[in-house]
Amino acid sequence: MHIFWKDKPQTSVKPQIKALLFDIFGTTVDWLGGMTDHARRLLAKRGLDGDAEGLVKEWRARYKPAIRPVRERKREWIDFDQLHREELDKIVARFGAGKLSSEDRDELTHGWRYLKAWPDVVPALHRLKKHFILGPLSNGTTRQLIETAKWSALPWDVVFGADTFRTYKPDPKVYLGAVALLALQPEEVLMVAAHSEDLDAAQQHGLRTCFVHRPTEDLKPNGSFDYVVDNFEHLARVLGAV
Amino acid sequence: MHIFWKDKPQTSVKPQIKALLFDIFGTTVDWLGGMTDHARRLLAKRGLDGDAEGLVKEWRARYKPAIRPVRERKREWIDFDQLHREELDKIVARFGAGKLSSEDRDELTHGWRYLKAWPDVVPALHRLKKHFILGPLSNGTTRQLIETAKWSALPWDVVFGADTFRTYKPDPKVYLGAVALLALQPEEVLMVAAHSEDLDAAQQHGLRTCFVHRPTEDLKPNGSFDYVVDNFEHLARVLGAV
Repeated sequence: MHIFWKDKPQTSVKPQIKALLFDIFGTTVDWLGGMTDHARRLLAKRGLDGDAEGLVKEWRARYKPAIRPVRERKREWIDFDQLHREELDKIVARFGAGKLSSEDRDELTHGWRYLKAWPDVVPALHRLKKHFILGPLSNGTTRQLIETAKWSALPWDVVFGADTFRTYKPDPKVYLGAVALLALQPEEVLMVAAHSEDLDAAQQHGLRTCFVHRPTEDLKPNGSFDYVVDNFEHLARVLGAV
Repeated sequence: MHIFWKDKPQTSVKPQIKALLFDIFGTTVDWLGGMTDHARRLLAKRGLDGDAEGLVKEWRARYKPAIRPVRERKREWIDFDQLHREELDKIVARFGAGKLSSEDRDELTHGWRYLKAWPDVVPALHRLKKHFILGPLSNGTTRQLIETAKWSALPWDVVFGADTFRTYKPDPKVYLGAVALLALQPEEVLMVAAHSEDLDAAQQHGLRTCFVHRPTEDLKPNGSFDYVVDNFEHLARVLGAV
């Protein structure tokens, strides 16, 4: 039987959500556990007695201030990999990792590509994929997001890295750029994140928003979001993707 | 066991191919069969005795001349959907389809999203996906490519529509834009198409090339390409993705 697509039933008077965009670091994957593991093994491999977790936490803490001048056009476009490599150089010595070679530092920076999803993520995405377009909308690079998806078997329909838009969230260009490439209205797109700042910006530009609780990220939503969920399984239930 | 990614064996002295980019219309999906089917059913639904296949062939023939002024910056950016909708209006009457409403014409234009892959495509892509990054690089829109992938279960890792680059193949910006977002060298990327013009342009900019035989497209390769294959299964065998 051939069914014309416009004959599909519309189940809601409100514009339907058609696509879900996911923040990655913290929201979809466990950067703290994964990067600490990468750093610890690399330090051990090189016989260095450094503080892996301290290094990773400081590295992550430096990322937000580092992207700000790029977003504000005070600094030319520089991608996640280049920026993280720069910041790494500034802090290795403080955490007993100063003897890592330049090649080791590149490798550790690429570790941000190889992070595991939280355990609820993959099964929920498979259910959600039957009903919605799914993609990351991340400050990572396109390549990084592709590798993470392959590494963690994330079944995305599309991948939006910050390099597509050459600026960083929460710059409106990122959210609205993705909405335009999806050929949707902002209210047809749900931004999912464990960070209120990300959701605030998405909301300001008309997207719908879902706060997800993650132990390493914002502990409570700070804002009035369309959905607040415990994890991606909860989100799938709330959206009727059973 | 934890294996650092740079420890992966390099199996070739030549730079390895890391990503495969696929042309869509004709190469991956059967536009002629699919669109003729869509048009025929829509005409029947409206009680019109039009020439569905003639309409679709003429529609397709008009696409190349229509994108040229956009590529040459003589016309502002206009995407695949808008362009095809315009061209459709110019030809419907000639093929006994002039009574299709504006809404019907939109629907038929959206038919380009819902095309079936050639039968060899999906199994081969699943095998190739274990070894390479896979994505369409098409003159279609990102949204269209997402919908086609969902409709035909194409397991892409990433999706590159012409709207990402706001110009059309064979403009170098499309090929090199995709290579940049993949963070690869051109020679690490293989362009797969059933059209010599597409492959020529990719080759000029350093990509590797694979001509695939498809009954509705260029019948013979016109150029010296890295690979010439009968279908995607053949390509998977040639690349060792068994």
